[in-house]
Amino acid sequence: MHMNIVDIIIKKKNKESLTEEEIKYVINGFVIGEIKDYQMSSLLMAIVLNGMTDEEVIHLTKYMILSGSTLDLSTLTNVVDKHSTGGVGDKTTLIISPIVASCGCKVAKMSGRGLGYTGGTIDKLESIPGFKTNLTKEEFLTEIKDIGMAITSQTDNIALADKKIYALRDVTGTTESIPLIASSIMSKKIASGSKNLVLDIKVGEGALVKNIEEARTLANLMIKIGKENNMQVICLLTNMDIPLGNNIGNSLEVLEALNILYYNNINNNLKDLCIELSSYMVSLGLNISYEEAKNKVLEVLESKKAYNKLLEFIKYQNGDITKLPKSTLVYEIKSDKEGYLTNLSSLELSKLSMHLGAGRQTKEDTIDYSAGIIINKTLNDKVSVGDTLLTLYTNKELPPIEKEKLFTIDNNINDNYQLVYEIIK
Amino acid sequence: MHMNIVDIIIKKKNKESLTEEEIKYVINGFVIGEIKDYQMSSLLMAIVLNGMTDEEVIHLTKYMILSGSTLDLSTLTNVVDKHSTGGVGDKTTLIISPIVASCGCKVAKMSGRGLGYTGGTIDKLESIPGFKTNLTKEEFLTEIKDIGMAITSQTDNIALADKKIYALRDVTGTTESIPLIASSIMSKKIASGSKNLVLDIKVGEGALVKNIEEARTLANLMIKIGKENNMQVICLLTNMDIPLGNNIGNSLEVLEALNILYYNNINNNLKDLCIELSSYMVSLGLNISYEEAKNKVLEVLESKKAYNKLLEFIKYQNGDITKLPKSTLVYEIKSDKEGYLTNLSSLELSKLSMHLGAGRQTKEDTIDYSAGIIINKTLNDKVSVGDTLLTLYTNKELPPIEKEKLFTIDNNINDNYQLVYEIIK
Repeated sequence: MHMNIVDIIIKKKNKESLTEEEIKYVINGFVIGEIKDYQMSSLLMAIVLNGMTDEEVIHLTKYMILSGSTLDLSTLTNVVDKHSTGGVGDKTTLIISPIVASCGCKVAKMSGRGLGYTGGTIDKLESIPGFKTNLTKEEFLTEIKDIGMAITSQTDNIALADKKIYALRDVTGTTESIPLIASSIMSKKIASGSKNLVLDIKVGEGALVKNIEEARTLANLMIKIGKENNMQVICLLTNMDIPLGNNIGNSLEVLEALNILYYNNINNNLKDLCIELSSYMVSLGLNISYEEAKNKVLEVLESKKAYNKLLEFIKYQNGDITKLPKSTLVYEIKSDKEGYLTNLSSLELSKLSMHLGAGRQTKEDTIDYSAGIIINKTLNDKVSVGDTLLTLYTNKELPPIEKEKLFTIDNNINDNYQLVYEIIK
Repeated sequence: MHMNIVDIIIKKKNKESLTEEEIKYVINGFVIGEIKDYQMSSLLMAIVLNGMTDEEVIHLTKYMILSGSTLDLSTLTNVVDKHSTGGVGDKTTLIISPIVASCGCKVAKMSGRGLGYTGGTIDKLESIPGFKTNLTKEEFLTEIKDIGMAITSQTDNIALADKKIYALRDVTGTTESIPLIASSIMSKKIASGSKNLVLDIKVGEGALVKNIEEARTLANLMIKIGKENNMQVICLLTNMDIPLGNNIGNSLEVLEALNILYYNNINNNLKDLCIELSSYMVSLGLNISYEEAKNKVLEVLESKKAYNKLLEFIKYQNGDITKLPKSTLVYEIKSDKEGYLTNLSSLELSKLSMHLGAGRQTKEDTIDYSAGIIINKTLNDKVSVGDTLLTLYTNKELPPIEKEKLFTIDNNINDNYQLVYEIIK
């Protein structure tokens, strides 16, 4: 049958569903360059605005997986993967992977670099001098067998079509779309070989997904795609209005990961979320109940097994944790009000962190690994005039700071904050 | 103020209105190549699906006009222009221009070439051996002063942005959009200098506009844009389900134009429409009533002044009407039913005509000027078995013909056909 991309675009413009054959034609044609960027972006906008049926998304995911190589992890047992839709201060991968590996699961993680407001795990790891992020397939599998975990940068070939489409979505205003987000994440995760996946879907102003209803739809869709591909998926819908933990910025986040695993007395949203995510991962990976899994997680935290696993992992991939870079300039932002710290803006703090040098605005930008922000108080802490609220680390001039956008000091505490909204499986 | 194309695309995706400054930024950025094709096509699809306010369309038209050169016709009096949104067998420009010029108006017409199913006036004129379609500005103005009319191909510089955007719309499924159609037509017409315009908005299966409601919206929008630009606009909403007149194909259409002006006894939808359009044009151009104008039109038809004007015009632009090309192959399509000719499909006949060689499928295709179709019967004519219904002219092998798609023979006549649906001013 003869197909034509313009007819397919018009079909989606008219809110019709695309057939499996049409989706195959689009993905293959785009990968080989027969379908042009300007045609794909027009189709993407039509998908953003007119949506896709679950069946279309399943087909889209299928041909995105088939467009690249896949990783076979069938020689490993108890493998479990985790994915976050992207959050500010989200260093959970660095904390969870050693916890889960210490509990006896295998973590085979391919991670990405950050673009825009949210950082990538690979950038965080590369802030550790010597750390090697581009493992060969053999190195990757050997490390998992040796120590139970490995993290490597995504190979170019995994879900090739997704890579090309994602780059285009980024510059054409087509990132916010449930079908496109679901197929992008799931194609990469399925091609990466794990059969168990815990998804952390961030909800809030700084996130791709702005409200619970959308997050719920996304979760159910990804669970459905998982089922079609013989993958078990559990979704956590979590708060992204307030940053996770206290540190934002690459080497600062590595430090915080070490601290969370070392000090048993830290209690904040980051630690709580890591315990939740780890428990669901261990439950999937070992096929045990959530309660059993959670006991194991708390055990490896208490015993510092997880802390030692993180050190072992960093050393295995050649990183020298004693040589984390430090910025030359340090500024303190102090409170000029008295009251309680009732809010911190993820979005504004991540913009500030990017301006300090911690992130990329375009793909060509280089990152200052030492730059970032430490939040010196925790939500609902009592604040006096003159108390340091933020410490900024950078090697360049400070941008103008608008305190009232970054945090809120109020007379009454904020009792609305909820970290985990919902669990969907 | 710093602007960013991705933010602007997202604004339109979210159904917000764009400011004048944003529209200016988009048009200028696209013309200089700073905004990429893939970004523009994403924005175009968002406009197709989310629409634009009248104010946005007025701004879009303004910056499309300013993106190129404009023609100053202020040294001429009684100037009037006409535009059709594109129809099958639509050779009205060739008939109307000499009528209107014979009535004392000035017709300064820039026309385009055809692409897809509808032919362009320039292609039709180029089927006349020797006919010169690329006049200089001076030649164009001198001819209008000498004989009251001139037709030239569009210069590259008129509404430059529209040219670039139109080419992109054609290959990205974004042609069907009231705001984009209105701004495209009006930017070209306003930049071409006339202050009076009659618009023939085609409605039907083969047309850009599929129903009367859309046509009405388009008409009112173009009248509003006209007002903003000191241009008087009258819109006729006309039927495009059935081809105009009997001939389809370039030299065949030139022949039909000559016949309509020469033989006073021809009565068909083409002649009726030409009289209507001419009357509104003369009414605008001479600032007289429609009735007065119509009398003048009927006079120049009766006296053959209009016929002689067409011959004068063709000769002035160097065409030799005695040497119209003829195809080598002629096929007759006969009826195998008895009854009345109750329908002719514009869309299917134009596709067939294109396959015979009369049109371009891509911009690079060359046209066979002699190719086309003569419809040997008129709507509601009595048809006997064996009567010739269509005569096909071509220089290549005949494609497969599906008679029942091209025309309908029925027991009862079709009394639903209406040529002019509405006049909007």
